Amino acid sequence: MTIQSLTEQIKKKSSFLCVGLDSDRSKLPSCVSQQLEAQFVFNKQIIDATHDLAVAYKINTAFYESEGSEGFQALEKTVQYLKEMYPDHFTIADAKRGDIGNTSTHYAKAFFEKLPFDSVTVAPYMGRDSIEPFLQFEGKYAILLVLTSNQGAYDFQTLNNADQSLYETIIATSRTWRGSDRLMYVLGATKSEHLATVRALAPKSFFLVPGIGAQGGDLASVFHAAANEDVGLLVNSSRSIIFASSGDDYADAARTAAMDLQHKMKKLL
Amino acid sequence: MTIQSLTEQIKKKSSFLCVGLDSDRSKLPSCVSQQLEAQFVFNKQIIDATHDLAVAYKINTAFYESEGSEGFQALEKTVQYLKEMYPDHFTIADAKRGDIGNTSTHYAKAFFEKLPFDSVTVAPYMGRDSIEPFLQFEGKYAILLVLTSNQGAYDFQTLNNADQSLYETIIATSRTWRGSDRLMYVLGATKSEHLATVRALAPKSFFLVPGIGAQGGDLASVFHAAANEDVGLLVNSSRSIIFASSGDDYADAARTAAMDLQHKMKKLL
Repeated sequence: MTIQSLTEQIKKKSSFLCVGLDSDRSKLPSCVSQQLEAQFVFNKQIIDATHDLAVAYKINTAFYESEGSEGFQALEKTVQYLKEMYPDHFTIADAKRGDIGNTSTHYAKAFFEKLPFDSVTVAPYMGRDSIEPFLQFEGKYAILLVLTSNQGAYDFQTLNNADQSLYETIIATSRTWRGSDRLMYVLGATKSEHLATVRALAPKSFFLVPGIGAQGGDLASVFHAAANEDVGLLVNSSRSIIFASSGDDYADAARTAAMDLQHKMKKLL
Repeated sequence: MTIQSLTEQIKKKSSFLCVGLDSDRSKLPSCVSQQLEAQFVFNKQIIDATHDLAVAYKINTAFYESEGSEGFQALEKTVQYLKEMYPDHFTIADAKRGDIGNTSTHYAKAFFEKLPFDSVTVAPYMGRDSIEPFLQFEGKYAILLVLTSNQGAYDFQTLNNADQSLYETIIATSRTWRGSDRLMYVLGATKSEHLATVRALAPKSFFLVPGIGAQGGDLASVFHAAANEDVGLLVNSSRSIIFASSGDDYADAARTAAMDLQHKMKKLL
């Protein structure tokens, strides 16, 4: 997948929506939860019901790892289904990985070679040699945590060093890394007052923005602060789409919630 | 597992050795690599050959995730084997996880409930609410990255904020978190000049120290800078033990390498 084709999809669909498949086994509608391969069955229905409204799907690995090897298989089947049925959609492993170089290479292989993800989220704390291994795969992207959507973001990310916040230093430093044209950034929608600062530091990069919906972020504020001339945004919503209904109509309800967001996006574009 | 029983094991064995099972599939001795369940077979042999010399085993998840579901099963079988055969050994999932609260809870369940690990390594960047979920499990521990063994550690971890380095701020802040008596810290052996600073900030905590061996850290420097009255250290060695020989004698060679380290530890204690 290239940045260009992602941008084309955004323009074609008038949507920069990413649907987050945080498919917590214990929260699945009762009509699904007793089925074999419940997480995969659920994801498949959600994907089929939203694919024309979304340009990306984000799979949060935690909700699969917590189900052991059965969960791992659901994750595997979900990303394979996406690749096969909807190859134009951008897929994100929201895994927040990062380790010493040799180890990061193994994580990169896990998501980019063993599994067919287009991208994986990575944590910056271990610095350059923990991230560069993710940037050496043609057509694959690493999405670096910069300013996250949770309250704990204010513990360290906004600390000042000289005249910059830590998150500003991270984004500026990361532009010097080998393969930085394959870097994207995670910025929480709940931190929209900081988005313009980050856009100035990385004018051409894609931002993945979680925190719309259940976490309270505002779509228009995000767009006005952070869109660039190519849009350059993927706004993620997870729970407010996938768990819009806990009844038999969960897929229809997910479609309605996704359509509501896509309509709002269309107005902004 | 309690801190007290880990300390007892250290005293009983005159060892604070943690063996890192970074069992890269492509580096396994040829006599193992063609076998079914090669990673598990290899780990079992290494564990059986070193268990009386080590007090802990660290399983780096990257080397299993990169093998897909087969790798996941090898990881699962390894930690289950340890729990069953050697329940006095402290087990570490070296996974460097961390996410928003609800998601971190799922990671904690993955390692502490679905799998029987005693501890998991976690990354600090997302702050308090990303780590506290790991600290709510009786007899389970989170090991926070503070100062890592790689070169990239100098990119952000040692940045100054007011009169403190970021890593010092992180360790001091983490002491205020709910459940901080279940926190341990990761400190690279290659950064021994900083270890005394960290020990002053967390006098009673356990430190997991990687970077001895292949990465070049020095055991005696680590011990003199960071040991407390209860030792309070787990020094990890991975490649220089498990890949000490690439021949049929790999388990014996691992035992010899582990014994060499344990002898050095005994002299220091």
